[in-house]
Amino acid sequence: RSWIHHSAALQSGSASKSTFFAPVEDAMLPPGTFKDRVAFITGGGTGLGRAMTTTLSQLGAVCVIASRKLDVLQKTAEEISSQTGNKVHVVQCDVKDPQAVSGCVDMMESLTGLPDIIINNAAGNFVCPSERLSPNGWKSITDIVLNGTAYVTLELGKRLIQNQKGASFLAITTIYAESGSGFVVPSASAKAGVEALYKSLAAEWGRYGHRFNIIQPGPIRTKGAFSRLDPTGRFEKAMIDRIPTGRLGKPEEVANLAAYISSNYATWMSGAVIRLDGGEYVSMAGEFNELRRVTPEEWKMMETMIRSTKGS
Amino acid sequence: RSWIHHSAALQSGSASKSTFFAPVEDAMLPPGTFKDRVAFITGGGTGLGRAMTTTLSQLGAVCVIASRKLDVLQKTAEEISSQTGNKVHVVQCDVKDPQAVSGCVDMMESLTGLPDIIINNAAGNFVCPSERLSPNGWKSITDIVLNGTAYVTLELGKRLIQNQKGASFLAITTIYAESGSGFVVPSASAKAGVEALYKSLAAEWGRYGHRFNIIQPGPIRTKGAFSRLDPTGRFEKAMIDRIPTGRLGKPEEVANLAAYISSNYATWMSGAVIRLDGGEYVSMAGEFNELRRVTPEEWKMMETMIRSTKGS
Amino acid sequence: RSWIHHSAALQSGSASKSTFFAPVEDAMLPPGTFKDRVAFITGGGTGLGRAMTTTLSQLGAVCVIASRKLDVLQKTAEEISSQTGNKVHVVQCDVKDPQAVSGCVDMMESLTGLPDIIINNAAGNFVCPSERLSPNGWKSITDIVLNGTAYVTLELGKRLIQNQKGASFLAITTIYAESGSGFVVPSASAKAGVEALYKSLAAEWGRYGHRFNIIQPGPIRTKGAFSRLDPTGRFEKAMIDRIPTGRLGKPEEVANLAAYISSNYATWMSGAVIRLDGGEYVSMAGEFNELRRVTPEEWKMMETMIRSTKGS
Amino acid sequence: RSWIHHSAALQSGSASKSTFFAPVEDAMLPPGTFKDRVAFITGGGTGLGRAMTTTLSQLGAVCVIASRKLDVLQKTAEEISSQTGNKVHVVQCDVKDPQAVSGCVDMMESLTGLPDIIINNAAGNFVCPSERLSPNGWKSITDIVLNGTAYVTLELGKRLIQNQKGASFLAITTIYAESGSGFVVPSASAKAGVEALYKSLAAEWGRYGHRFNIIQPGPIRTKGAFSRLDPTGRFEKAMIDRIPTGRLGKPEEVANLAAYISSNYATWMSGAVIRLDGGEYVSMAGEFNELRRVTPEEWKMMETMIRSTKGS
Ligand SMILES: NC(=O)c1ccc[n+]([C@@H]2O[C@H](COP(=O)([O-])OP(=O)(O)OC[C@H]3O[C@@H](n4cnc5c(N)ncnc54)[C@H](OP(=O)(O)O)[C@@H]3O)[C@@H](O)[C@H]2O)c1
Ligand SMILES: NC(=O)c1ccc[n+]([C@@H]2O[C@H](COP(=O)([O-])OP(=O)(O)OC[C@H]3O[C@@H](n4cnc5c(N)ncnc54)[C@H](OP(=O)(O)O)[C@@H]3O)[C@@H](O)[C@H]2O)c1
Ligand SMILES: NC(=O)c1ccc[n+]([C@@H]2O[C@H](COP(=O)([O-])OP(=O)(O)OC[C@H]3O[C@@H](n4cnc5c(N)ncnc54)[C@H](OP(=O)(O)O)[C@@H]3O)[C@@H](O)[C@H]2O)c1
Ligand SMILES: NC(=O)c1ccc[n+]([C@@H]2O[C@H](COP(=O)([O-])OP(=O)(O)OC[C@H]3O[C@@H](n4cnc5c(N)ncnc54)[C@H](OP(=O)(O)O)[C@@H]3O)[C@@H](O)[C@H]2O)c1
Repeated sequence: RSWIHHSAALQSGSASKSTFFAPVEDAMLPPGTFKDRVAFITGGGTGLGRAMTTTLSQLGAVCVIASRKLDVLQKTAEEISSQTGNKVHVVQCDVKDPQAVSGCVDMMESLTGLPDIIINNAAGNFVCPSERLSPNGWKSITDIVLNGTAYVTLELGKRLIQNQKGASFLAITTIYAESGSGFVVPSASAKAGVEALYKSLAAEWGRYGHRFNIIQPGPIRTKGAFSRLDPTGRFEKAMIDRIPTGRLGKPEEVANLAAYISSNYATWMSGAVIRLDGGEYVSMAGEFNELRRVTPEEWKMMETMIRSTKGS
Repeated sequence: RSWIHHSAALQSGSASKSTFFAPVEDAMLPPGTFKDRVAFITGGGTGLGRAMTTTLSQLGAVCVIASRKLDVLQKTAEEISSQTGNKVHVVQCDVKDPQAVSGCVDMMESLTGLPDIIINNAAGNFVCPSERLSPNGWKSITDIVLNGTAYVTLELGKRLIQNQKGASFLAITTIYAESGSGFVVPSASAKAGVEALYKSLAAEWGRYGHRFNIIQPGPIRTKGAFSRLDPTGRFEKAMIDRIPTGRLGKPEEVANLAAYISSNYATWMSGAVIRLDGGEYVSMAGEFNELRRVTPEEWKMMETMIRSTKGS
Repeated sequence: RSWIHHSAALQSGSASKSTFFAPVEDAMLPPGTFKDRVAFITGGGTGLGRAMTTTLSQLGAVCVIASRKLDVLQKTAEEISSQTGNKVHVVQCDVKDPQAVSGCVDMMESLTGLPDIIINNAAGNFVCPSERLSPNGWKSITDIVLNGTAYVTLELGKRLIQNQKGASFLAITTIYAESGSGFVVPSASAKAGVEALYKSLAAEWGRYGHRFNIIQPGPIRTKGAFSRLDPTGRFEKAMIDRIPTGRLGKPEEVANLAAYISSNYATWMSGAVIRLDGGEYVSMAGEFNELRRVTPEEWKMMETMIRSTKGS
Repeated sequence: RSWIHHSAALQSGSASKSTFFAPVEDAMLPPGTFKDRVAFITGGGTGLGRAMTTTLSQLGAVCVIASRKLDVLQKTAEEISSQTGNKVHVVQCDVKDPQAVSGCVDMMESLTGLPDIIINNAAGNFVCPSERLSPNGWKSITDIVLNGTAYVTLELGKRLIQNQKGASFLAITTIYAESGSGFVVPSASAKAGVEALYKSLAAEWGRYGHRFNIIQPGPIRTKGAFSRLDPTGRFEKAMIDRIPTGRLGKPEEVANLAAYISSNYATWMSGAVIRLDGGEYVSMAGEFNELRRVTPEEWKMMETMIRSTKGS
């Protein structure tokens, strides 16, 4: 009646764990999954937005990408389009301006009609001790992330409702939306707000044919994120060290998940919040996970000590 | 080896459950708990803010209450002060304006010095189908609730840090901050943002002597809340029906919890999120809780049917 | 600066919302995704387990299904195998017995070798007022659901670790694991325990090449679940009414999600908890979602009343 | 329009943060709060259970404490009783045995009548790599923590319901119940199960006059916990370092919170889960909290780099 399997030899942590978890970057869904579908992706010109646009386009969607930098959008659109053979439209739009959002949707309506798939991916962020944040610093992030997402979602939602057209809405948030995090506080607050917005509308607008879901990515190297969150590159190693799968994510891995959620294979998914982070969140949050540093020899000693403890 | 206690007679739900849960509205903490302490309460002129101010004042605190309506604040301050014998200061302040917040803290510094206790309680809300919300409607709420809380918190935090003074911060959110809720979507998003702000700063600013906690109240009759959330009074009965303790909350119950959290009895509490809702949230969220409507006779029938089920 | 879009005509809830959300039941992943892979599915003979086995088998996996009823397993195995052309092995096993679990894994090792994919799907449940539950009733559920999942997971985990073989573990829990729910309390507790087990091991065993994820299904008609949870069929209508997508789920929808999570497309997913419930959870949990019953005429009246409210 | 307050001098983390958060260990509630009340505390002979018993006794309750070691219970009972002047009864009981639980409640009924306050505090735990856990090791913990709590709760609940007597139930869980944690996996699972049990019954048994709440303590030095969780004392420093309030908790701090929750000041609290951990959980879980190690000089460099970043 022993508590411990002595046959189980104590192992030391495999340094090469990431070899178990090689990424697959090909599109996962069947070709043509998004044929005759229109997808609207904010921040689609770079990083994760670009990867999601590429995957949707590859699978047949007509895409519309929107952000502030028209030249970046145009370059991306041409590259994707020439790779996939499907049209990628661009619309310049600063999502924090409701007028601009309305104008952007007007333009999209004339280009492609209202979308079947909406991905709210545009965001801003930078690391900063909170006592250094000015009201402008605070607003610069929440205006893009929370208000921008709300304006895009409400504007499209209203028009889709008036047209009795269903749609899939997806928001890209982050693993610290739920827990909060120091040093990125406006982003944490705004992303938490986005999650509440999407869970709320999942409940309220199902009756109009709309689904709302959320992906919380862990760390994925993109220029936009890493240059403002780890400019010196100093924290990347520590991050990888605590990620159970031993590596950063790839934009294409988010893209495959996003494509699934946005597809008809997921018509029964709404109000879901999906963490895709290599296990980083659970690894950080669990109080005793630091014991991964205990060596087999130390475990043996600790077992002996615990066994010999009497009483409380 | 039966699964079911036949000795346990099936009961029908007690109509009078609320008799078990009579509220106690007296101050709970020892007299003088907040002697020589300064407390700052936004929205302290009405509703829950007024109740929390009353309790803190009664327990010895010098209070400063701030909101937009100076006349309301003054009337409340005089009433509380004359009841408790402790000074209640008033400062007019619209929290959504960072300049006004800064001016308000200037005035507080000259009146009382920086506070030991901060309660972010000011908020706005109204029920509305989300497809009817304009960008202005959205912003009217998030500006007060999320940005207002951030401006107050950041402004006070910075000054307290510069003065190497510790403090307890408390935010009043709501039970739908985590789950989201249709028909109050800007409030749900903004309150979720406030929770992330407070959890983030609990982690980041502990080193400066600051604690950050959250109360999520369930439904409590205040003019401000009920006139905009249930103007016809039609939903109150359904709410009470699903609250396991069978009644709405009392402002004084929130005040006692807030006083505890803000006191030195709770110096080891930080980053906590405390639901005070009579059990409403768990009652709504649990998928099978509607079975409370099954009568003893129906249970007997159901038990027989389940018992006779063969296989899967 | 109006808060409300008057152009947005108030809509009454579409009775036919489920037309927007027609299920797709075909396998989503590319053919051959699981070629040369071995999958072990507990409770694979019926319901969701059968559907997941079918999808994995169709995509190339050799499957091993295990539960108590050998005849049911054999019939299912033959039917799937003849449909997909891939071998489905059966092993009789009562998961609540650690010896039986160990014997089952011995047999699997000799049949197929250790698995690449493990799905802990076996469970038991029945509705019952908690005051009627005997200790045996309590244990009958927690022994299968929590201990059974633990025995299977620990036994396979140890052997995989000794063999330096990576694997994907998936557990099927339920939307009430997080919230709890009356009338299915042993199941709620045991499923919450399973979720903690999987989140814990996601953090701890990543270094051995293992991923751990969770699907929380909402209501899906299977004989096993519905005969013991809604034997009279009385609650189904109310459930569908509160599901934003207006219908129950299909076993094949869970199977597609499970296949994705178990595949190499998801090697960066670990510690994730994915709700697949048509939005039921957020719809139940959000405090104001009952306002979906308000008609356009009533909204007009309520808007007028709110607008005319003065002060707090 | 700067994002950053240059006036806010960058601070280096105060080494002496714990001076801000000195514990108060006196009883908080008014004397006599629990006069004529009977409290039942499992594991009341040691550690947190002893502290809670002391506080309740001091405030007037007649206490009954139960665990396996009669001699420990008796010594504690005498010490508390002689200190407070109120009777503390002892009952030997192994909570994992339903017969023993039933016998224990029989004895309590004859000694004091059924209780008004129930605190499920008994537990077992030890650190261990999960690949070393045998089925017996797993069950040794879940039987005490999950089944033990269930047997006590169901047995008392049934008898209270039959007697139409209301009561407050409190369970002591842990901060890793929600997140899970490696190396204490049976405890994490069992405590998560306890939380689901209590949230479920909060919804189901409100109609019988029962409230159910949960405290999740962070690290508090007790012989029982620390000898089995950190036998070498090696991890304590790292724990304190990441706790925002800079110290471990005190048993009396849990006792004051437990007394509040169990009192009539909290009759509107049910289904609540209260973390009392000095902020440890949010500090661990937030992805960027490690940036607390960045010095003021490094921040200046990082700000410059971020500012000079162009594009995404
Ligand atoms: N990479 C990660 O590790 C990570 C982790 C968690 C979450 N995320 C999330 O993933 C999403 C994409 O991030 P990323 O890593 O791909 O970084 P990114 O390349 O910087 O993407 C951000 C995009 O947002 C656009 N954008 C910014 N402000 C805008 C505005 N006011 N109006 C319209 N568009 C605007 C940017 O385009 P313009 O400059 O042209 O406007 C850019 O294309 C973000 O929501 C981010 O929070 C990323
Ligand atoms: N009552 C409930 O059932 C309930 C439930 C959950 C949460 N809550 C929360 O409890 C808190 C108090 O609500 P309550 O029920 O007591 O309602 P209330 O009486 O309407 O309180 C709101 C207070 O906020 C102040 N306020 C509003 N806008 C402001 C602004 N821009 N700047 C400064 N102050 C402002 C108001 O004062 P002025 O008008 O003078 O500015 C008022 O005193 C709120 O955070 C609310 O969300 C209440
Ligand atoms: N259907 C739903 O609405 C729903 C919703 C949420 C979650 N779920 C979850 O989905 C999973 C599958 O449920 P289902 O709806 O497909 O019901 P089901 O057909 O009754 O499946 C349960 C399976 O578990 C097996 N099982 C039960 N006790 C066992 C034991 N002691 N040892 C080994 N196997 C055992 C059963 O096979 P034997 O009888 O041959 O042992 C059966 O195949 C369960 O985990 C359930 O909790 C279902
Ligand atoms: N201290 C911490 O840092 C910490 C942190 C988080 C949570 N907690 C929780 O706080 C509670 C108290 O822990 P503690 O730190 O005070 O440790 P403790 O002194 O070891 O308390 C555990 C108590 O449980 C009793 N117990 C154990 N097995 C039992 C059984 N089978 N039947 C009846 N009683 C049994 C023990 O008494 P006998 O040996 O006489 O049976 C002992 O009095 C536990 O629930 C623990 O999980 C503690």
